[in-house]
Amino acid sequence: MSSADLQISMNSVWVMVAASLVYFMQAGFACVEAGFTRSKNTGNIVMKNLMDFSVGSLVYWLIGFALMFGAGNLFVGWSGFALTDSFTHLGLSLPLPLFLFFQTVFAGTAATIVSGAMAERTKFSTYLIYSAIVSALIYPVVGHWIWGGGWLSELGFVDFAGSTVVHSVGGWASLAGVMVVGPRLGKYNEDGSSRTLHGHNLLVASLGVFILWFGWFGFNCGSTLAADGEAIGRIAVTTNLAAAAGSLSAMVFSWSLSGKANVAMTLNGALGGLVGITASTAYVSPLSAAIIGLTAGILVVLAANFLDRVHVDDAVGAVPVHGVCGAFGTLAVGLFAEDGGLLTGGGWRLLGVQFLGVLAAFIWTFPLAYLLFKALKATVGLRVSAQEEREGLDLSEHGQSAYPEQLDYSNFLSWLRKNEHPGNPI
Amino acid sequence: MSSADLQISMNSVWVMVAASLVYFMQAGFACVEAGFTRSKNTGNIVMKNLMDFSVGSLVYWLIGFALMFGAGNLFVGWSGFALTDSFTHLGLSLPLPLFLFFQTVFAGTAATIVSGAMAERTKFSTYLIYSAIVSALIYPVVGHWIWGGGWLSELGFVDFAGSTVVHSVGGWASLAGVMVVGPRLGKYNEDGSSRTLHGHNLLVASLGVFILWFGWFGFNCGSTLAADGEAIGRIAVTTNLAAAAGSLSAMVFSWSLSGKANVAMTLNGALGGLVGITASTAYVSPLSAAIIGLTAGILVVLAANFLDRVHVDDAVGAVPVHGVCGAFGTLAVGLFAEDGGLLTGGGWRLLGVQFLGVLAAFIWTFPLAYLLFKALKATVGLRVSAQEEREGLDLSEHGQSAYPEQLDYSNFLSWLRKNEHPGNPI
Amino acid sequence: MSSADLQISMNSVWVMVAASLVYFMQAGFACVEAGFTRSKNTGNIVMKNLMDFSVGSLVYWLIGFALMFGAGNLFVGWSGFALTDSFTHLGLSLPLPLFLFFQTVFAGTAATIVSGAMAERTKFSTYLIYSAIVSALIYPVVGHWIWGGGWLSELGFVDFAGSTVVHSVGGWASLAGVMVVGPRLGKYNEDGSSRTLHGHNLLVASLGVFILWFGWFGFNCGSTLAADGEAIGRIAVTTNLAAAAGSLSAMVFSWSLSGKANVAMTLNGALGGLVGITASTAYVSPLSAAIIGLTAGILVVLAANFLDRVHVDDAVGAVPVHGVCGAFGTLAVGLFAEDGGLLTGGGWRLLGVQFLGVLAAFIWTFPLAYLLFKALKATVGLRVSAQEEREGLDLSEHGQSAYPEQLDYSNFLSWLRKNEHPGNPI
Repeated sequence: MSSADLQISMNSVWVMVAASLVYFMQAGFACVEAGFTRSKNTGNIVMKNLMDFSVGSLVYWLIGFALMFGAGNLFVGWSGFALTDSFTHLGLSLPLPLFLFFQTVFAGTAATIVSGAMAERTKFSTYLIYSAIVSALIYPVVGHWIWGGGWLSELGFVDFAGSTVVHSVGGWASLAGVMVVGPRLGKYNEDGSSRTLHGHNLLVASLGVFILWFGWFGFNCGSTLAADGEAIGRIAVTTNLAAAAGSLSAMVFSWSLSGKANVAMTLNGALGGLVGITASTAYVSPLSAAIIGLTAGILVVLAANFLDRVHVDDAVGAVPVHGVCGAFGTLAVGLFAEDGGLLTGGGWRLLGVQFLGVLAAFIWTFPLAYLLFKALKATVGLRVSAQEEREGLDLSEHGQSAYPEQLDYSNFLSWLRKNEHPGNPI
Repeated sequence: MSSADLQISMNSVWVMVAASLVYFMQAGFACVEAGFTRSKNTGNIVMKNLMDFSVGSLVYWLIGFALMFGAGNLFVGWSGFALTDSFTHLGLSLPLPLFLFFQTVFAGTAATIVSGAMAERTKFSTYLIYSAIVSALIYPVVGHWIWGGGWLSELGFVDFAGSTVVHSVGGWASLAGVMVVGPRLGKYNEDGSSRTLHGHNLLVASLGVFILWFGWFGFNCGSTLAADGEAIGRIAVTTNLAAAAGSLSAMVFSWSLSGKANVAMTLNGALGGLVGITASTAYVSPLSAAIIGLTAGILVVLAANFLDRVHVDDAVGAVPVHGVCGAFGTLAVGLFAEDGGLLTGGGWRLLGVQFLGVLAAFIWTFPLAYLLFKALKATVGLRVSAQEEREGLDLSEHGQSAYPEQLDYSNFLSWLRKNEHPGNPI
Repeated sequence: MSSADLQISMNSVWVMVAASLVYFMQAGFACVEAGFTRSKNTGNIVMKNLMDFSVGSLVYWLIGFALMFGAGNLFVGWSGFALTDSFTHLGLSLPLPLFLFFQTVFAGTAATIVSGAMAERTKFSTYLIYSAIVSALIYPVVGHWIWGGGWLSELGFVDFAGSTVVHSVGGWASLAGVMVVGPRLGKYNEDGSSRTLHGHNLLVASLGVFILWFGWFGFNCGSTLAADGEAIGRIAVTTNLAAAAGSLSAMVFSWSLSGKANVAMTLNGALGGLVGITASTAYVSPLSAAIIGLTAGILVVLAANFLDRVHVDDAVGAVPVHGVCGAFGTLAVGLFAEDGGLLTGGGWRLLGVQFLGVLAAFIWTFPLAYLLFKALKATVGLRVSAQEEREGLDLSEHGQSAYPEQLDYSNFLSWLRKNEHPGNPI
């Protein structure tokens, strides 16, 4: 076997492993989203996660991949639907199906982000439609601009593993979704103050964060698309330090605000650090990575508090983590990149291009997703009824509770409380 | 280092990673089985999963591997017990211990399938005996026929990663087991109608499915036994599409039957798609993979409903998923294989051989397992007492609840219901 | 690309994958520790696990790695703080950042062990200080002696993947911690007998064990630091057999003692087998590995019972698993190593050196950790108040329950029990 063949074999092994890790992030999202929401909606969360990946895998293979990587123009690709093309123009150093698989799990990540933000009140059938459109159209077009040879890549825009392509697209679609679907019942009081609707299982949520952090080593290090040890090593170190710094800063900052080391904020801080480093991970020093992570952790807390004040009800913090830290992380390339960063003596040009890319992703994603959700709302309906929402989406949408034994006891207890102990102090 | 040595190193890295992923499927099975059953049997489920892998690892090393891959005849291998042989006749392109490890985690998968089907009423000590016999004898013999140079491989039978070898063997042994042990108390009413004994945690069950899907990339892609990028890429794409299609079709089909998007059926649909593609994954097109997955998802629902009607109580759906989809997936090679499939112009021969192999695996596994369970029932006993079953196997077999805090409250609540609120409407 | 470059690429891919698996062990530790403790402390457990890894990653990069692998003397390294050195004296066959990352996840493992032992009563802020000191100082110094070219490695001491370096250091620090912080309220009765404070979720605990077992394939096989297929294969087989044997022997032994197949002991038996094989995994036969695992499983049960008798309250069994089996596993090299083991005809020298290393690790770690905990106790305080401990650390330290819905019901039930049904028989 020739040296070039060996290299391709090695790239294939590496990308396959990385793609598997990215696939596993679906489990992480399911755990985080289910853990951060109430038990009456757990089965629904799980179904959304499973289905956006399943539907997404099918439509991305049929349509999305062609729009993203097909031969086309600066704005969209247009060849190779259902992989009916050899895609030689990509000059890949690994087999095409592996590249499709790697890109599929990325598309699945972008799609799944929205399920968490809009959790606990969105109609399941409508979510399936939305999800297909994100994977088939919204995500691939931005992807083409940046990774498929489109206009942003021509300008020199840099997004190594997808702070913008994957995360901010997911974040801005989430923002549109929660604005159109409206806040959950009981989230805001009549006087304008807000209530925390506690998630039902922080252990599962934290398991989700550990899984996501684990999967991120595939997400970031695998974006080399090659068994390049130097790059992989740097990316592993910067990714890990940013996550560590993000969880630390979110904890310390939330502690300083509330007097307690908040678990949910710390978990989201780790995710914010990961999203924040994703664009620049191959281009910055470990120290810069730590600074990016520290900043991202604080941004998560600030953005979550801001959204709460303006009554945008994001059930799991997807907009702070993926939207805000995705945008920040993309700008961080322009600040910290060893080659071209403002703070490393590279001048303003790269930062300007990064800003333009962040803006372009927002301008494409947010209005389009907003219109899509409005259209869905006006036609098939976007939200379950108030009665269904109170009862929980598991029973209304899926006819079964995720925890039937607990439901049985909690029903009896609710009955007891109301009928036998109406004045009980608990 | 020579090119051949590099190739062997690369194969080793790949197979080690794949084997680790397959090992992790044990966690997936434990989660699926525990989530799909009641909380009073959770510790027992976990112990069975842990023990069938532990006992299986030991006996497969001592006996099973020799029967499966030792030099022997067309029906069984007979050399290298406890790895006391060099197995040069296998012509491996990776070190022998790695091959043993890869095969061990496969044997563990076959063994563990039965624990779910027979859950909630089978004696723990008896299960350990059964489990050892599957890993030492029942599985390795079929394995020898198909992967160890036996008569089915001589005929041209194709089972790339084990739809028959692993899954249908596990499925048919499950069928024998549930027929001998009988249905769980309360599963069937006096009028012949059946009740759903709801699993206690669909979140954990779905985490299990995500873990299994993740591990399946090792299971299928690793069955290349070599760092062959082209093959790995194709397998990744077909495996993923079949799983996606299986979960989608099971959801849509169950939705059309019951009016609700059933969570448990959807989860089993994904697994059915994975089992269904396992035999043909390296030989079919992405489109064929999607069709195989769609079909498997529907078969899971149909088979589950059929078993329910004939009062075969499979607690987690192991027979539909592993038995039925394993058989279907093996036949699908004969239908869809690009080389030799009936629908791709290859004629009937391959389909005929596949059918023979499916039949042979059934004829070997089902009667043998049936006799084994009958013998165990007549000697050491197969089932716990009705009292123990009602109380739950955690307390009776292991002396501890998996959720002692919840047990404490549920005991008090049951007492309250019975003694203070006998007529409560809940 | 040259053959040497290909080799380095392959080593990099392998070590990156292995390091990711070792990272994932953090999730395993979190699950085991949370599952083995009560639900009122779950959020706190999770935060400690997340934070010891986050803080540990930062300080190990800044300080610990330099002390462990910097150029220095026989007792400590002293160069390359914050990776400001090329570390060419290490003669690595993979890029330096990857080596740092691999070592970081190992350091995180050593640090996290203590969180479980001291769970349910230790102050969170104090734990953060302790955790930083372990990762920055206590662990790296032992690491330098054994893996960084220090005096023990000069003597020929062998600890392949860290039975002593990682596990016994974690175990002895745990022992110091639990002795200083004292037993949990309610653990020991006035008559000196002890009570089992049951963990709240054995399913999650067992998921944690499956995750740890999975991650251990990275831990042990990755310690080759190279894509060496022969070594990886042997290590995979011996690691797996020892874990299998450990879970089996712990189950059988606890069964023989108590009449029930104890779930928690079996889970810890698997971990004991893994810890026990870690030092010798690359140097022993499969049969020796099985014997080591069998012995470790029994030692776990014996040590847990002994600690209980002497009123050392280790909440999760960290001292038996990591301390005792770590020491045993290190000695096992001297007994079973194919080259130099006493039982394989190698004489007493290696066993003597191994004993010296075990002793040295204890003499360094235990007194230092003991003094550290004493100093923390005397200054910032080591333990929460009795009131906070009773209420649970989630509310007192983090202001939120990990399971708010269950807390709500359990509060009402407690009220009911006390006020309405004070004499209820449950």
